[in-house]
Amino acid sequence: MRIALDAMGGDTGPEPIIEGALAALRENRNFEIILLGPDEFLRQHLATLGMDGAIASRLHVEHAPETITMHETPVEAVRRKKNSTIMVGFELVRVGSADALVSAGHSGATLASAVKKLGRLKGISRPGIAGMFPTLKQPVMIMDLGANVDCRPQHLLQFAIMAASCISKILQMANPRVGLLSIGEEAGKGNALVKEAHELLAASNLNFIGNVEGRDVYQGNVDVIVCDGFIGNISLKVSEGLADAAMQMLRAEILKSFRAKIGYLLIRNAFKNFRKRVDYAEYGGAPLLGINGTGIVSHGKSNATAIKNAVVVAANMVEKRVNDAIVEALAKWEQSEPVEADG
Amino acid sequence: MRIALDAMGGDTGPEPIIEGALAALRENRNFEIILLGPDEFLRQHLATLGMDGAIASRLHVEHAPETITMHETPVEAVRRKKNSTIMVGFELVRVGSADALVSAGHSGATLASAVKKLGRLKGISRPGIAGMFPTLKQPVMIMDLGANVDCRPQHLLQFAIMAASCISKILQMANPRVGLLSIGEEAGKGNALVKEAHELLAASNLNFIGNVEGRDVYQGNVDVIVCDGFIGNISLKVSEGLADAAMQMLRAEILKSFRAKIGYLLIRNAFKNFRKRVDYAEYGGAPLLGINGTGIVSHGKSNATAIKNAVVVAANMVEKRVNDAIVEALAKWEQSEPVEADG
Repeated sequence: MRIALDAMGGDTGPEPIIEGALAALRENRNFEIILLGPDEFLRQHLATLGMDGAIASRLHVEHAPETITMHETPVEAVRRKKNSTIMVGFELVRVGSADALVSAGHSGATLASAVKKLGRLKGISRPGIAGMFPTLKQPVMIMDLGANVDCRPQHLLQFAIMAASCISKILQMANPRVGLLSIGEEAGKGNALVKEAHELLAASNLNFIGNVEGRDVYQGNVDVIVCDGFIGNISLKVSEGLADAAMQMLRAEILKSFRAKIGYLLIRNAFKNFRKRVDYAEYGGAPLLGINGTGIVSHGKSNATAIKNAVVVAANMVEKRVNDAIVEALAKWEQSEPVEADG
Repeated sequence: MRIALDAMGGDTGPEPIIEGALAALRENRNFEIILLGPDEFLRQHLATLGMDGAIASRLHVEHAPETITMHETPVEAVRRKKNSTIMVGFELVRVGSADALVSAGHSGATLASAVKKLGRLKGISRPGIAGMFPTLKQPVMIMDLGANVDCRPQHLLQFAIMAASCISKILQMANPRVGLLSIGEEAGKGNALVKEAHELLAASNLNFIGNVEGRDVYQGNVDVIVCDGFIGNISLKVSEGLADAAMQMLRAEILKSFRAKIGYLLIRNAFKNFRKRVDYAEYGGAPLLGINGTGIVSHGKSNATAIKNAVVVAANMVEKRVNDAIVEALAKWEQSEPVEADG
């Protein structure tokens, strides 16, 4: 198995990405990695690292001289930058030279590129971005995180089918609980989109537990939460922003008193463990679901651990044949649909 | 000035509400309070408190035998429970026997009751709920927090005008910065609603700073954030849920080590100050804006401090004539609209 890795996508340059690639290769023997970026630049960088031969033989470079920046629109970027890391990576997947792409770059452009190069899975109208979030119990998968800002009820149903298929494969979970993000638990609560999606989900053969509220996201009583990409993205960003702001406020309070500073020294490890537990880096990026291939987008701020975990999730998705599971689940639903529409 | 206070609305019974009323009366001399609830029950409760005469003379009771529960829909509750605390309270406001109502009960029913009893302000199509959130700097007002789940662009513009008028009066702020909650800073980013609302806001005479993202909510670089009630409610609940879950996770980490427990004892005051800084109780409830009168909804879990602050905010809104400012701002915008539509 070969995982293509965008070496140029991160906010802080290629170092953490290459470091993550090496860590992934050291820990796993079942895949190779193809680094995407300017050929000479990458080879020079790799030459300074003094890798051992066994690792070096499993790390390849594919020339991709262009990088898509965050300021480009996905559509334009994909049309203009045919030699970008992302486009070259999905071309490798298309021709079978790679099995998956991981990128910490422009997530919208990555999805647009995947759709252009690989197409959609049969029956999927809107591919999207699914992310894993930490909770008080096991992680929850939320879809969509921002690819589809204006959705129809059918799209939310497809997100549910895709995310449930994915999480059941990669976490080996038999019958994941699916919730619909809304502003009240009762079926009648929510906006027009959510009320209609509720009916579709209730009539599906998913393990649909009904609406969940914003306060349920971090409780861990649901395995998949579906929402449109506008809500998903805002929920994600509000959470990141609140966590940042709270840590800053707490730090300011601690720095006000000598006693508290001493206390912090004693409590520091507990803080570290806590941060590790909620760190996105542990969750290995967000799978693109609905494309006819495997792609993972990682946070622009990804460190080596995050990249390593994203590569491992990508390999896991390929190995567990997540896309086959999605197509199968969708076909099952389509078969059952006419019957349930009568009921 | 007289503030009507729903004694029966809180999740934990009337005690914290009555305690909050007494605290408000002790700290302020410019208003009286009318407690709403079953007459005999409240009088018996008050008799056990041993108030001094000066306070007792400024605390009144108005009989309202019914309470609207959280499981009722706003429309049904308002139609059926004419003798509920909320309906009786707004009737007092309607006939001029009270100047404002504060309730920690059903926020949707409170708004529905306000609209039924008092009507909307001239020109307002959708009254809503505006809430104050803590940030790294001064608080931010977000509207709508859940009253209007399906909005048109004009509604978001009206939320902006109402919230900006309110915050400029109660915080004495000259030209509050208004942001539109979206998933990217550029004008073209967002769902269909937000893209259209962006154009209306940009053409208004508000101090519109453009789109803000979820991560900006807690930064304090904007004074008013507008969004539809579905997004607003989910952002609020996600934030509450994350804060709860994070505190639980951190507590669990601290309890794992003796060293960390000692550290916690030393750091405890910093934690307390932090929690006070982010505590909704400090922000005094969420004003209902757009109704022809003054109403505040408080969190169901409100403690005495939260109730006291909500009563003070209500008095402040009446005194500063927030509704006059809203009507004036709306009239200005309506006058300027045809000119700006040409530009």
